Amino acid sequence: MATSGSNSLSDFSLFFEPKSVAVIGSFREGTFGGYVAIKSLLKAGYGGRIHPVNPGYAEVLGLKVYPSVRELPSKADLALIMINARRVPGVIRECAESGIRAIVLVADGFAERDREGARLQEEVVGIAREWGVRIIGPNTAGLVNNLNGFNPSPYDAGYYGFKKGAVTICSQTGMINPQAYPYRDLGFGVSKLCDFGNKCDLDECDLLEYLEKDPTTAVISMYLETIRDGRRFLAVCERVATKKPLLAIKLGATREGARASASHTGSLAIDDKIFEAACRQSGILRLHEFNELFELPKVFTSQPLPKGNRLGLVSYTGAIGVLAADEGAKYGLTLASLASETAGKFEDLFPGLGSMPVDIGPMIPSVKDFSTVYSGILQAVLRDENVDSLFNVLWADAYGNNTKAYLDTYEELKGSARKPVVTWIYGPNPAKVLDLTGRIEGLGFPVFGEPERCVKALGLLFQYANRLQRNGLPV
Amino acid sequence: MATSGSNSLSDFSLFFEPKSVAVIGSFREGTFGGYVAIKSLLKAGYGGRIHPVNPGYAEVLGLKVYPSVRELPSKADLALIMINARRVPGVIRECAESGIRAIVLVADGFAERDREGARLQEEVVGIAREWGVRIIGPNTAGLVNNLNGFNPSPYDAGYYGFKKGAVTICSQTGMINPQAYPYRDLGFGVSKLCDFGNKCDLDECDLLEYLEKDPTTAVISMYLETIRDGRRFLAVCERVATKKPLLAIKLGATREGARASASHTGSLAIDDKIFEAACRQSGILRLHEFNELFELPKVFTSQPLPKGNRLGLVSYTGAIGVLAADEGAKYGLTLASLASETAGKFEDLFPGLGSMPVDIGPMIPSVKDFSTVYSGILQAVLRDENVDSLFNVLWADAYGNNTKAYLDTYEELKGSARKPVVTWIYGPNPAKVLDLTGRIEGLGFPVFGEPERCVKALGLLFQYANRLQRNGLPV
Repeated sequence: MATSGSNSLSDFSLFFEPKSVAVIGSFREGTFGGYVAIKSLLKAGYGGRIHPVNPGYAEVLGLKVYPSVRELPSKADLALIMINARRVPGVIRECAESGIRAIVLVADGFAERDREGARLQEEVVGIAREWGVRIIGPNTAGLVNNLNGFNPSPYDAGYYGFKKGAVTICSQTGMINPQAYPYRDLGFGVSKLCDFGNKCDLDECDLLEYLEKDPTTAVISMYLETIRDGRRFLAVCERVATKKPLLAIKLGATREGARASASHTGSLAIDDKIFEAACRQSGILRLHEFNELFELPKVFTSQPLPKGNRLGLVSYTGAIGVLAADEGAKYGLTLASLASETAGKFEDLFPGLGSMPVDIGPMIPSVKDFSTVYSGILQAVLRDENVDSLFNVLWADAYGNNTKAYLDTYEELKGSARKPVVTWIYGPNPAKVLDLTGRIEGLGFPVFGEPERCVKALGLLFQYANRLQRNGLPV
Repeated sequence: MATSGSNSLSDFSLFFEPKSVAVIGSFREGTFGGYVAIKSLLKAGYGGRIHPVNPGYAEVLGLKVYPSVRELPSKADLALIMINARRVPGVIRECAESGIRAIVLVADGFAERDREGARLQEEVVGIAREWGVRIIGPNTAGLVNNLNGFNPSPYDAGYYGFKKGAVTICSQTGMINPQAYPYRDLGFGVSKLCDFGNKCDLDECDLLEYLEKDPTTAVISMYLETIRDGRRFLAVCERVATKKPLLAIKLGATREGARASASHTGSLAIDDKIFEAACRQSGILRLHEFNELFELPKVFTSQPLPKGNRLGLVSYTGAIGVLAADEGAKYGLTLASLASETAGKFEDLFPGLGSMPVDIGPMIPSVKDFSTVYSGILQAVLRDENVDSLFNVLWADAYGNNTKAYLDTYEELKGSARKPVVTWIYGPNPAKVLDLTGRIEGLGFPVFGEPERCVKALGLLFQYANRLQRNGLPV
């Protein structure tokens, strides 16, 4: 097992901000491997030096290829290794002897494969300990620093630039890397990506300690199957989760899942109840579905934190009010009771409108100036002192009759809303729903495809704000 | 409270197969109301007689308007009422006196609104009892029989024909009607839709008894907030659920949700644990998220039932194996262990491929003839005697390199697979994912946007098959 923390912070800056990188692998053109990693680095605009290493090539993508890491013109900060597992120990020793201290071991065929692989992995760890080398992997899709163009992705994603931002996603699977998820379309900017792989050396705790102090990471979204050191994990999360929202999903909860995890990244999963308790104690914002990893961060990057747990709802149907109440209760939210002043405003706008949840469905057949009434309702709810956040439901009617009113209202809210707003859109025409979704998100308001996920987004915002408040921190 | 069951079955055929309908409401052009209901009926090709009723109009959409139901040229089988609540009791009496025995009371402003509304609702029920009239509603978006063009939808959905089929969706909210969900794009054909509304008379049990014997309904998907008569509900569901898959979501589980429900349809919700127990006892296939109501039926209309609970999985990543194991356990599924014969076939196709969950990711960089290998793997897994169903994960890579192999393979499966197959598609390019989704669904294989929902679809298929088997019925 790794001893940890000795110099992990400085080591991680070698991983995310190397001035030079050795890429050791095959340079045959294709959709995976060393060739793609170098193409990724070049296309992403990495400013450091790239040293391809392979005795069988002279040049790749206009770069000179070196026969071994011993023959590099200058020391590399990091090596990316994509070769057959059996050859890995020897190459890591060469890297260490050449002064390389950071290794991303993309190669697979280690503890996740079989006994021989497990033995090889132990050998690799031994060499790393001996030489003071730190390793991410093996069996990893690697890492990306989206802020400086350090994107040595070994899979071709078909795009190389996505929005820079404050979200870091890390995981025990390569499913978070750019070849798997459309980072150009997720509604938030990315700081870093990191697949831990088998975690033979550096693990989730090391990365979290780095991210805790990383000024360019404001939100962390994490996928775990196993936790190497429960005690340290709790302590680290407890610190991190009062500084930045820390969202996490953990699979491998069942005996079957744990067995599958052992063959996936060669690790043993911990009991689900322990993780649930750990989340409650440490402030981890727990996710339950895989897509949430990529969908929920945007609410933290785009919306202010709520001051309390009172959920406002404007909808076309009572069913979503019931749903919001049920779902909200899971996160400590409660349906707001509107102040009497708001009820007065409502009476002026449309007599008999009723109160929370605000159901505007019944007024639709007879309302004269929908645009004014709609905007007035949303403004009144958001200004109500009893409302801390708003779940707004848009009906994208068949003909888009209401679209202008919606967009004008969100344009107004953009400048004035000081409370979080999350939107669900439904309707009979998928193209209209998609179009409206893009426009509302373009105005900076997150939209989710499932109403439950909207409520969860506001619920997690509240849980994070609540944790800060209980720690005496400003919201 | 309603006495039930006396003549509900024959009454319901009046609701879904009326030979003539009186539409009582406003005929001003717009997107809601009597005008739209008549437009819907005409466009959907309803073959019965339509009698618009309103003293203020002479003609609407080419039809003669009658000043009152008393003056119709012949008795109507059903009346659709969309007028101010205060006028409803009088009009229902007129309907009854004119021989109408089935009423869809779209009008709102009853028990869901206030005390006066509750009183009006009681008055309406009294008149119905007195005259032997049956009522759906009030506060309902009505019903649709998609098989005979009886679509008196009071909201304009922008389309009037959607695929005819075997799924009936019913609910305690109008959110299931064509103005809210894109029934042209849901991947299954619809038999009937029915919003119970406030359930002042006919309720979920009455409808279920009708659907139990309705030969054109093969799958039922139901949204509930309240259950009027728990004992009867259990008995009815127990009968229905061994004849047809009965999917149901029940909201109003929390105290907050129940309160919201009271203001939605004027009813009192029951405890969530009771419903959970009822599902287990009666064989209801429980849904937990709103969109599942519209997404999960397609697995029952397109896939055969599995013979057992052994889940096969072919994926590009171990993470989905862990997820499938965790999720599957919720429904009694277990990851299949492949027969040794299959392992042999795998060795021939690609040495070192490994076994369940089948992770084809590692082979991608070096496989020569992906198309043949891929098809071989899927065929081998589906023919394995230890596999009862298949969760297949497609990586829509950036350039669509694998698309042809996928489509050719699914084309083969279309003719040969005798086990259910459900697919999840991910990738870096949303347009490619969407396109591939459409093509796979076009071949008759359901695709879901969330991996957990794929596993749930197979899990519910298994639970249904298992119930049939335990009742000595063939699968």
